Amino acid sequence: MVQLFDDERIDYLLANESMQIIQSPTAFAFSLDAVLLAHFTYVPVKSGTILDLCTGNGVIPLLLSIRTNARITGVEIQKRIFQMAERNVKLNSLDDQMQIIHGDLKEMQPVLGQSSFDVVTCNPPYFKTLSSTEHNQNEYLTIARHEVYCTLEDVVKACKLHVRPGGKVAMVHRPGRLVDIIELFRKYKIEPKRMQFVYPKKGKEANMLLVEGIRDGKADLKILPPLYIYEEDRTYTKEAREIIYGR
Amino acid sequence: MVQLFDDERIDYLLANESMQIIQSPTAFAFSLDAVLLAHFTYVPVKSGTILDLCTGNGVIPLLLSIRTNARITGVEIQKRIFQMAERNVKLNSLDDQMQIIHGDLKEMQPVLGQSSFDVVTCNPPYFKTLSSTEHNQNEYLTIARHEVYCTLEDVVKACKLHVRPGGKVAMVHRPGRLVDIIELFRKYKIEPKRMQFVYPKKGKEANMLLVEGIRDGKADLKILPPLYIYEEDRTYTKEAREIIYGR
Repeated sequence: MVQLFDDERIDYLLANESMQIIQSPTAFAFSLDAVLLAHFTYVPVKSGTILDLCTGNGVIPLLLSIRTNARITGVEIQKRIFQMAERNVKLNSLDDQMQIIHGDLKEMQPVLGQSSFDVVTCNPPYFKTLSSTEHNQNEYLTIARHEVYCTLEDVVKACKLHVRPGGKVAMVHRPGRLVDIIELFRKYKIEPKRMQFVYPKKGKEANMLLVEGIRDGKADLKILPPLYIYEEDRTYTKEAREIIYGR
Repeated sequence: MVQLFDDERIDYLLANESMQIIQSPTAFAFSLDAVLLAHFTYVPVKSGTILDLCTGNGVIPLLLSIRTNARITGVEIQKRIFQMAERNVKLNSLDDQMQIIHGDLKEMQPVLGQSSFDVVTCNPPYFKTLSSTEHNQNEYLTIARHEVYCTLEDVVKACKLHVRPGGKVAMVHRPGRLVDIIELFRKYKIEPKRMQFVYPKKGKEANMLLVEGIRDGKADLKILPPLYIYEEDRTYTKEAREIIYGR
């Protein structure tokens, strides 16, 4: 039994109907971006360690737990959302596999040491500054979506600090920030190795970018086949359906 | 009437059957890469100036002349291939619109000044070092394909030197060099604005990358819809056919 607050609700985790997740439309509800990142990233299967920065309600750790027995740590800066993530771990009886930490990703070295994770994942805030239409958003959503507490550079720096040499860093972001991402990955010695662009449907520009780098890796980037989300009739494509629902 | 040497032959320029081009299988024959770049790049239509570095037999200037009245300058370092390009200009009676210069792109400032072109295009050598299977290639092909006379940085630096502020730089390359390209574009203040990945067919990794940047431009990259070249049965896709044959 877990407690629900305010407008929280329990949803099924799309990819796995035996898992459930506490969400809130006003505090944190996961998006397709997180689902695609959890599917895209490499994971060690039998053991190892994974760190998920900006973990929100823990959606990426939950999704990764379907694919791996590695120990998963999530870090979330917003207390209310951190508590949702903690309850999500309990709700799915995953206390043995994962822990959620309430804290600032810029200050995790005393807690997590350095170079201690095989994989670091992150679905960071996308937007540099508040656009005029979003000034009225509530604080929870603003912090999750905008670089209020951390810039892209803070995120990449934290990824570098916590991933082991030869370990992987995976991120989802907007194509508009690709140039910044590549510049920062190089600056922090995370060499981009795999990239995939996500297109809402055929004939449209990409609206999402998945990238995986290797710390201290050799330069050699592969661009995976494009991923389309919707057919012309707005139903999911076969490939999107397989990622989202596992079938 | 133009003179042909050695194993040279005259082909139709694919996109336009009224244009012809001198090629040689052992010295220089244009590839799909050049055709896609000439289609991808922005051109001023009625007037203006375009510079094509590593112009080879002048295929990109010839293709661009179909789309624009701008004055086009090509630079080629290999004398025999430069002479092919010169004859191609004559063969198509384009002497009034274009000139080919025999020289090293690293040393063009005395000839071309600086910041004097609206657009700079380049289909540069792709490979850093000779692979063992290519050691036996003849010198012409080696120089066209490998960074013998110019590195990627030399090319980007020359693009920056010759394009005017606000002007465009367009390049075709391999996805494996995307990270280097972005890093160098940023270093030389050419902000990547449009990028398109070319896939040999569905389900395959991209094997070509088209990128256009603006000198001193604002950060905001768009990823265009993917371009597929072949159908499953190895015929051209409709979109490839339209680019290559114009129909």
